[in-house]
Amino acid sequence: MKPTLPKGTRDLGPDQVDRRQHIFGVIREAFVRRGYRPLETPAMESLDTLTGKYGEEGDQLLFKILNNGDYLAKADPAALESRDSALLTRSIAKRGLRYDLTVPFARYVAMNQHLLSFPFKRYQIQPVWRADRPQKGRYQEFFQCDADVIGSSSLMYEAELIRVYDEVFHALGIPVEIRINHRRLLQGLARICRLESHWQTLTTAMDKADKIGWDGVQAELIRHGLPAELVDRAIRLLQSSPSGARDADLAADPDGAAGLSELAEIRTYLGSAPLHNRLVDDLTLARGLSYYTGAILEVKATEVAMGSLGGGGRYADLTGLFGLPGMSGVGISFGADRIYDVMEEQRLFPASALHRLQVLVLCLDAEGHAESYRLTESLRASGIIADLYPEAAKLQKMMKYADSIGAGHVLIIGEEERASGLYTLRHMAEGIQQKLDLKGIIHALTAPTNC
Amino acid sequence: MKPTLPKGTRDLGPDQVDRRQHIFGVIREAFVRRGYRPLETPAMESLDTLTGKYGEEGDQLLFKILNNGDYLAKADPAALESRDSALLTRSIAKRGLRYDLTVPFARYVAMNQHLLSFPFKRYQIQPVWRADRPQKGRYQEFFQCDADVIGSSSLMYEAELIRVYDEVFHALGIPVEIRINHRRLLQGLARICRLESHWQTLTTAMDKADKIGWDGVQAELIRHGLPAELVDRAIRLLQSSPSGARDADLAADPDGAAGLSELAEIRTYLGSAPLHNRLVDDLTLARGLSYYTGAILEVKATEVAMGSLGGGGRYADLTGLFGLPGMSGVGISFGADRIYDVMEEQRLFPASALHRLQVLVLCLDAEGHAESYRLTESLRASGIIADLYPEAAKLQKMMKYADSIGAGHVLIIGEEERASGLYTLRHMAEGIQQKLDLKGIIHALTAPTNC
Repeated sequence: MKPTLPKGTRDLGPDQVDRRQHIFGVIREAFVRRGYRPLETPAMESLDTLTGKYGEEGDQLLFKILNNGDYLAKADPAALESRDSALLTRSIAKRGLRYDLTVPFARYVAMNQHLLSFPFKRYQIQPVWRADRPQKGRYQEFFQCDADVIGSSSLMYEAELIRVYDEVFHALGIPVEIRINHRRLLQGLARICRLESHWQTLTTAMDKADKIGWDGVQAELIRHGLPAELVDRAIRLLQSSPSGARDADLAADPDGAAGLSELAEIRTYLGSAPLHNRLVDDLTLARGLSYYTGAILEVKATEVAMGSLGGGGRYADLTGLFGLPGMSGVGISFGADRIYDVMEEQRLFPASALHRLQVLVLCLDAEGHAESYRLTESLRASGIIADLYPEAAKLQKMMKYADSIGAGHVLIIGEEERASGLYTLRHMAEGIQQKLDLKGIIHALTAPTNC
Repeated sequence: MKPTLPKGTRDLGPDQVDRRQHIFGVIREAFVRRGYRPLETPAMESLDTLTGKYGEEGDQLLFKILNNGDYLAKADPAALESRDSALLTRSIAKRGLRYDLTVPFARYVAMNQHLLSFPFKRYQIQPVWRADRPQKGRYQEFFQCDADVIGSSSLMYEAELIRVYDEVFHALGIPVEIRINHRRLLQGLARICRLESHWQTLTTAMDKADKIGWDGVQAELIRHGLPAELVDRAIRLLQSSPSGARDADLAADPDGAAGLSELAEIRTYLGSAPLHNRLVDDLTLARGLSYYTGAILEVKATEVAMGSLGGGGRYADLTGLFGLPGMSGVGISFGADRIYDVMEEQRLFPASALHRLQVLVLCLDAEGHAESYRLTESLRASGIIADLYPEAAKLQKMMKYADSIGAGHVLIIGEEERASGLYTLRHMAEGIQQKLDLKGIIHALTAPTNC
């Protein structure tokens, strides 16, 4: 049989895994140093846990797992009779694959509320699965990378998560802009413009300004039946600069005032220690997720056209659905696949991200092969990534292999080299050769430039 | 709703994830230094790829994923009519969850044969799913941790993988015995005892000697109709020590001679550099997997009663099923869950495996909170795992939190401390307090014992 992969899935080969681990490593480090602890939840959750959390469209995109054994024995006869797939699913599939990391986190916190100490800070880096139509560069299995603090309303955490974004993107070499807004500013804006009852329509349209322009937003709002005059005012306010008249208007509204005050407090926490990237107030930032109730964050690359590389915000109640109400939290996520694409496009991955061979040992004669293997083990014991070509072969053949796997150096060992204890170390890219003893080789390969 | 987890699944909390990462980190390091590269395959594979690879029982333990959308529209009407679950599955589920890492690896190699350079060395650490009946300590989702070299028959790799086992278990602090055998020795043994045609029965029974004793093995073989005299001879040979008469008998058989010669060559590669653990010839070692054709390896803890902590061997043809015949390979795997259990039982996890807070900063007055946050960020910038209690609160309450999350130290900041720049650093376990300035705190927390 000719093997294939299911549509929408992919293998990650060696270089891809190494590079993705580089990204995750930088992110993990920033979280760990701030007291975030790791959590891993199972790929399979009860469909009771997942269903109804992601809207109707989300429910359709859940991958459902067929019950094992003779599942038809317990299947709903009416659903079978009427050939109703959706109805039948309830009786033949109890489990589904994780769709995001937020719902499993909320489920975990609710289940373990008596064991956890709050505030509880966790990060989670795991794959999720969505039955989206596969597209170029979009997969049905992809990694998410989230961190949340739950059980405190302190605005210190907003500042902390801004620092995480700033530090991570700086370490990865991606210049970004961190945008911040506050849900209560948007509520204030709606009230000022007497559009309170159209708050959802307004933010949904606003969110598209990047794609359809402000004229498009205006047209959409008017198409939805909002009064033209009020729409004009809202769009003027949204586009105005965040100072002077606009903030005075917002400050006069109770929600607007609360939003402004929280944003100011976040900046107090940030203090005067400079950020590597710009933190920008952006009243037009809405973000889709309806559970945000406080500050909202989003990260965009400044030098590449690419959707957001991360986003997050504060929610007043994430675990209420699972029977634990009133837990305020704030979280952010990193768009790992987009970050990967930006770094690849801009060639930002450091050479050290790839754990390729530093040296491939080439033994010219069968008699010396076992001895060459033992020498290779000594290199490894010194922390060098080293391997030996598995048999004595023609130099050309072995060189071709070294080249194809991207080995940094080759070390050539023949009868003469074994006798003298001096071996030829060749730098593959530069073609420079040196005769060195074992100590010299270890020194050459562990010098900082070869790490 | 009261949230639950599906049977057979579990969450891994912070300490568990940290500890498991410690195990994976040690294993990964040993592989990377030997030129193994990482591979990640998707959780979902085509059922065509998975079915028929794990025997009939394995097929039943595959988790199958329901096709999305109106799957009943394409369902087999006859299967629906007859309520035949197994038959219906073929028309309503195209995908299944990964059952092990070997079949996806073989599929990957066959699919990418023209892009890969051979020998190809890969390691893979990913979860797999099996619909086994859940038991205490046994889950339907668990991690496997495999490494294989494919595309070379060099016995150097057997030696290399023995070194990996030796190094990893030494680094983890688990004393083990590495057992080695060779499939051709077992074939030779069967021929010597004139039990060639009963080779499968013999090895299957042999494999149970640990559990049912040699008397039990003998009884089982006789029950299967093998001649008592020949069975006696086989068991005498199996139990005899690996030298003198026994090896002379085996050496007289072509398969036995080949097996002995390969084992000797592996020992030549290992050379005189001592192993940390014992490498033991064990003619009774068979291991279940029928695809092994050469050397067979197994690792057992010597100081705890526990099944094998790892195993592997050489196979002449792993990818033939996927259209790429004649690829010799050798691989090993680590039993991550058992290793975890041994390490927990024996308290072998180093304190450094847990990335808990080194210091929790406690601010006594609201006025100083933002300043305390910025001081906390300076500690983090020095590489210290640090956090700040999110609000000014009673010392007792904050100390209780510090204790519950296992913080190593607390740093107490009040009005007086901010004025003087001298803060109280308290070691939680020892109860010792010091007054230090910021530099002194960083020094105290980054000294080697606190890393």
